[in-house]
Parts: sequence; structure tokens; C-alpha cells
Amino acid sequence: MKKIILSSIALCAAAMSFSAAAQFAKPEDAVKYRKAAFSVTAAHFGRLGAMAQGKAPFDAKIATENAEIVASMAKLPWHAFGEGTETAETKAKPEVWKQSAKFKEAADKLQSESVKLVAATKTGKEDAFKAAFTATAGTCKSCHDDFKNK
Amino acid sequence: MKKIILSSIALCAAAMSFSAAAQFAKPEDAVKYRKAAFSVTAAHFGRLGAMAQGKAPFDAKIATENAEIVASMAKLPWHAFGEGTETAETKAKPEVWKQSAKFKEAADKLQSESVKLVAATKTGKEDAFKAAFTATAGTCKSCHDDFKNK
Repeated sequence: MKKIILSSIALCAAAMSFSAAAQFAKPEDAVKYRKAAFSVTAAHFGRLGAMAQGKAPFDAKIATENAEIVASMAKLPWHAFGEGTETAETKAKPEVWKQSAKFKEAADKLQSESVKLVAATKTGKEDAFKAAFTATAGTCKSCHDDFKNK
Repeated sequence: MKKIILSSIALCAAAMSFSAAAQFAKPEDAVKYRKAAFSVTAAHFGRLGAMAQGKAPFDAKIATENAEIVASMAKLPWHAFGEGTETAETKAKPEVWKQSAKFKEAADKLQSESVKLVAATKTGKEDAFKAAFTATAGTCKSCHDDFKNK
């Protein structure tokens, strides 16, 4: 019985791994994809940062537009961190794969905070926006500290 | 009076140009951004292509997920084709700036066809999906032919 369960787990793992790998023809494609997704995210997050830091005037409409893009983009990069993509040219630390549950938690945190950031921009209140921006930026930093080489 | 109008137009043009330029610190940043946006788009469009060409089984749910990402991403690259970004390393032809109305039309066409593509995937009908995929792919090809160096 134990053997059957273990075989089933192995089969599931293989199927999941195949499914993730099938999304990209080569590991390099996955790396290129996730870098691209983070680049787009960073550009829009940077515009929010300029407002949060007073380098650009706070404009709730523009903030919402950018926050919505950040929240959409925040869903994308994770499936491109499949097995086998740790060998391609990447700044991702081995911890992405060694501590995958913690990495997933960090990814989820960015997504949930960026959804709250959208909501904060919609209040039109600059203080609420700044607080939500800081919380979201904290998830970026914390994940980069743990999982990204400089 | 004519002078005042012309001055106003010049001021508006300057303001618009400043606004577009202000989105990116350097022309290279704009080029990096638009390449990244197109890379993400291409990855998801490629998954739809695999289904359309029978290389992957048609799955309406997966098709919708990918088409929705394509439709969202299709809105992004265009503001990164501002004045001054034609000099940075780019495959964009000078026609992007010389024939800007035609370029905008091509960009709009991708966006409208990708919205129809999302709707087609939601019907769950493979034929409708394939037709909408072909129409969307046509807007990619036509724009690349006119505006992108190989």
C-alpha cells in the first residue's frame, strides 16, 4: 500500500514537473520570461514609488492604473521558476528551489499586498496609498534578500 | 491670436512629450520595458499557438487564462515608443515614428483582436478559438512586417 502511494506521489510529481516544463521549450526561455515579467512590474512599481516618495505628485487615477498592472503582473513570474531553470543564467539563489514553500509564501505575499495596494489607491487617500505602497515594497525587499543575488 | 494658439499648441506638445518621457528615466529603459512586455506577451501567445496548431490539446480554460494575459499585456508597450527612444538599441523601424498614426492603428488592432480572442476562448468552441487566434496572429505579423526589423 505504501509503495502504491509513493508511486502515485512520484507520478504526480513527474506530471506536475512535466506540465511546468512544457510551458517553456528551454530553461533559458523560462529565465527570459520571468526577468521580463519582473521588468514590467518594476517599471510600474517605480512610478508608484515616485509618488510615494513625493518625487511625483500623488494622482489616485494614475496610481490605480499602475497598481492594477503591478497586481496583474505579480501573478506571472512564479511558474517560470520550474525545476531545471536554476542552472540557466539567473540571479535567483538556490534557496528558490531548496526552500520552495518559503518562496511560494513570499510570492503569495506580493500578490496579496499588491491587491491591497490597488484598493488603497482607489480610496484616493495619499496616506492609505503610501502605507500600502510601503507594505508592498517590503514584500519585494524581503523576497529579494532571501532569494535573489545582487 | 494665432501666436497665442500656436504657443498653446507648443506648450501642450511639450507637456505631452515631457509626460511620456517622464515615464522612463532613459531611452534604454523604455526599450527594455517594451521588449519585456512583448516577451511576456509572446510566451502566452505561443501557448495559444500550440493549441491552435494542434501541438497541444485545446483546453478552453487554459486558453482563456492565456488570452486574458495577452489582452492585458497588449495595452502596455505603446507608451514606451516615445520620441527619443528610436535611437536606443531597438528593432523598431523608423516608420514607428514617421507613420505614427498607422502604428497606433496597428497597436489598436492587436488590442481589439485580443479582446475578441478572450471572448472566443470563453465560448469553449475550438473553431471559434482558432479563427480568433488567426485574426490576432495576423495583427502581430502585419505590424512586425511594417514596423519591426528582423
